[in-house]
Amino acid sequence: MHYPNGKKVSVNAAKPSVFRETIYSNRGMTLEEDINETNDFYKDSNKAIIHKKPVPVQIVQVDYPKRSAAVIKEAYFKQASTTDYNGIYKGKYIDFEAKETRNKTSFPLSNIHQHQIDHMKQVVSHGAICFLIIRFSVLQETYYYPAEKLFIYWEKQLNGGRKSIPLDAVKKEGYIIPIQFHIKVDYLSVIDKYCI
Amino acid sequence: MHYPNGKKVSVNAAKPSVFRETIYSNRGMTLEEDINETNDFYKDSNKAIIHKKPVPVQIVQVDYPKRSAAVIKEAYFKQASTTDYNGIYKGKYIDFEAKETRNKTSFPLSNIHQHQIDHMKQVVSHGAICFLIIRFSVLQETYYYPAEKLFIYWEKQLNGGRKSIPLDAVKKEGYIIPIQFHIKVDYLSVIDKYCI
Repeated sequence: MHYPNGKKVSVNAAKPSVFRETIYSNRGMTLEEDINETNDFYKDSNKAIIHKKPVPVQIVQVDYPKRSAAVIKEAYFKQASTTDYNGIYKGKYIDFEAKETRNKTSFPLSNIHQHQIDHMKQVVSHGAICFLIIRFSVLQETYYYPAEKLFIYWEKQLNGGRKSIPLDAVKKEGYIIPIQFHIKVDYLSVIDKYCI
Repeated sequence: MHYPNGKKVSVNAAKPSVFRETIYSNRGMTLEEDINETNDFYKDSNKAIIHKKPVPVQIVQVDYPKRSAAVIKEAYFKQASTTDYNGIYKGKYIDFEAKETRNKTSFPLSNIHQHQIDHMKQVVSHGAICFLIIRFSVLQETYYYPAEKLFIYWEKQLNGGRKSIPLDAVKKEGYIIPIQFHIKVDYLSVIDKYCI
């Protein structure tokens, strides 16, 4: 992957244009990598099967060179219709979105989209364990924040309320996620303690 | 999307190169479209929340033209590490793969990959409702085939056994999926009847 200045970067940095700021500043990547490593550990230790969904792309043109793999020559990032992560833990359906902010005092709701709220409400109504993982990167703190609490702030915002969740509320209504060796974002420990 | 002959086709036809045969013959599309429509109906009627995962692509080069959306200029299809569909129904984690065959007497196991079997075994061990949807397109019959039965044929194949599941076995060990208006592949009715 190349930036317009020709600098080569990791292909893992590929993100929808709405997240371009994230790519340039390298924010967001760390949390995603930490969660992927955590999920690998959960899978390898047969604790839970949770996967990140592929980034959805709209494919426009594909070349099929002879004797080699198909090459996508033109495609565009699409907005995801669900959250990024889902899977199964102790028979329960798990569904979450992970977001990182450099803000030190609150989590801006602009990180979340209406269609993600819609999806989260749908799965919650069917009995899912659904939540946000919020990392305050400057504070180096990562929280488990229940979807049900997010919905309340979302509704308030739609009715002219504040456009962010104060850190104090995240601390009070959510749970700090412990960091462990190979389990950098041990969110299942929070589920074990508070949700099952 | 363009074929090498320059003929334009629906972008929905974009598929990994391993499925190129499927694209050319237009096989596979119908089942996927039918399942997507079914899932939309399930979601809109608040019966279940099941989504198809995006096709995973390895993005190599992205252009960011000024004042327009990011364009993926080079990318490759990756093999999926899970099945294509998952979600939640009545609090249960649902996970399945959908395959179409023109074979009239058996379902060739070459349609399935080892990593998909691994994934299915993992989610089954955690309590998932996991299955194959198999469409015999010439016969115009679509079956729900439990993952646990698939594992048996898979193991046999690895030990030199037959490389397909006979239609008779699919009929005996699986369940025919009824077709309904707006619910072209009503697999939840099978789950209701036999699995929950």
